[in-house]
Amino acid sequence: MKIARFSAGDELRYGIVEGLDPEDPSPSGESAGHLIVLKGDPLYTLPEATGQVVPLSEARLVSPVIPRSKVVGIGKNYAAHAAEMGSEPPAEPVVFLKPNTAVIGPDAPIVLPEWSDEVHYEAELAVVIRTVAKDIDPADAHRVVLGYTVANDVTARDRQRQDTTWTRAKSFDTSCPLGPWIEVPDPGTEAGFDPAAATIRTRVDGLVVQEGSTRDLIHTVPELIAFVSRLFTLLPGDVVLTGTPAGVGEIRAGQRVEVSVEGIGSMSNPVLRR
Amino acid sequence: MKIARFSAGDELRYGIVEGLDPEDPSPSGESAGHLIVLKGDPLYTLPEATGQVVPLSEARLVSPVIPRSKVVGIGKNYAAHAAEMGSEPPAEPVVFLKPNTAVIGPDAPIVLPEWSDEVHYEAELAVVIRTVAKDIDPADAHRVVLGYTVANDVTARDRQRQDTTWTRAKSFDTSCPLGPWIEVPDPGTEAGFDPAAATIRTRVDGLVVQEGSTRDLIHTVPELIAFVSRLFTLLPGDVVLTGTPAGVGEIRAGQRVEVSVEGIGSMSNPVLRR
Repeated sequence: MKIARFSAGDELRYGIVEGLDPEDPSPSGESAGHLIVLKGDPLYTLPEATGQVVPLSEARLVSPVIPRSKVVGIGKNYAAHAAEMGSEPPAEPVVFLKPNTAVIGPDAPIVLPEWSDEVHYEAELAVVIRTVAKDIDPADAHRVVLGYTVANDVTARDRQRQDTTWTRAKSFDTSCPLGPWIEVPDPGTEAGFDPAAATIRTRVDGLVVQEGSTRDLIHTVPELIAFVSRLFTLLPGDVVLTGTPAGVGEIRAGQRVEVSVEGIGSMSNPVLRR
Repeated sequence: MKIARFSAGDELRYGIVEGLDPEDPSPSGESAGHLIVLKGDPLYTLPEATGQVVPLSEARLVSPVIPRSKVVGIGKNYAAHAAEMGSEPPAEPVVFLKPNTAVIGPDAPIVLPEWSDEVHYEAELAVVIRTVAKDIDPADAHRVVLGYTVANDVTARDRQRQDTTWTRAKSFDTSCPLGPWIEVPDPGTEAGFDPAAATIRTRVDGLVVQEGSTRDLIHTVPELIAFVSRLFTLLPGDVVLTGTPAGVGEIRAGQRVEVSVEGIGSMSNPVLRR
């Protein structure tokens, strides 16, 4: 089940995405599907339909979640990406934070900050947390997960190299596109989406520039949730990124960057410089 | 004007602190003052009294604010502290994030994480943000400030030295005591509290172990607000720490650590290990 958040007049609503054409993996706005509009917020209530249906082509999707507390980022979680960054894969996950003010949704512009000359895309599988989570065992990690979405962990690479901390490089406004929706395992059925075997891609102006698979994650999703939940409490709506595969590279003003995870969907954002 | 947040039965209320004895700079709970109880949240409404008065000795104070988005930390902002950390003062502020899940209030225990053997206190002046703030000039910084409070930027020093990022060292639950209240400049009067000339102290079990003055800040409060507001948007209730003076040191289970800023107040927290 795919749950999107969208703008309907003055308010933000949630809807179940249906009727997607599997032959057409285009960004959400161009899709043929529709939204079964829901009552309330599926983070806190069981999904219940209002009876309303909205064509996806008429809905402006926004980020499917705004974290109440934090987006937790993970660095160098694919060996080939660690190598391209000039380092060995770390023994433990490298953890950083992105503030909720960095989150944007599909089609919202990524605004390059004036204090960076080298901003990179990083396509990633993202995990949306469902419950308060602290000191979780890997075997229980699935119980605290609402679902999965796609993230672009946009990074000012020059600042990441130069600064003592990664905060400036990773935390600027618009540096965390999330979307197009959350893939939620259907209760009582086999999960259709396998976070341990998903293909991740980035396209810049339509050309594939990054491709990898979560089969190559050094620390798996349950291991990451267990690890970060020993560092601090996760709240409902918090998001845990899982790291980016090899193939990172620059985005420039005027380009459009699209990140996708097969089985979830695809999200595209224009790149601007103020 | 000092505005505190406190627990009154099932709900959290705000109150103006009055009647403090200037001869008795003890932690808030021991003071002789009282609270003029307010309607609503002073972050979003002008203070208006309910008519109720509560003795401070009967009120359980909590953190005066829970940031909606982030606590922004600043590293090495006093030359003598940079020297004790073995480094030169940085040319630009070193910025890090603490999540809102790290915030606790007066008297709440600091819980040492099991993955650190060396946790340090760091007393700091903290700035509470009043409005959405982005790209602020230093000359306008006072307009986005609600007031000032006291922070203990509790840090797992061993992890700060070992890890690639400062996240594990700085973000664990209970690592950000804030309180005892917010010193808010009274509208229309000269500000009684000067954030550029305030004495900061830490006491461990009653003994002064750290003392400094915000006169020695490398980057002043307006400069810090301007700098961080160019990195990302600040939201109402976000908190900007200003760095700690020289004299940091360890806290151990069973101790009580008290941080104070003269002109604001004093906050004390017991230290526990689970």
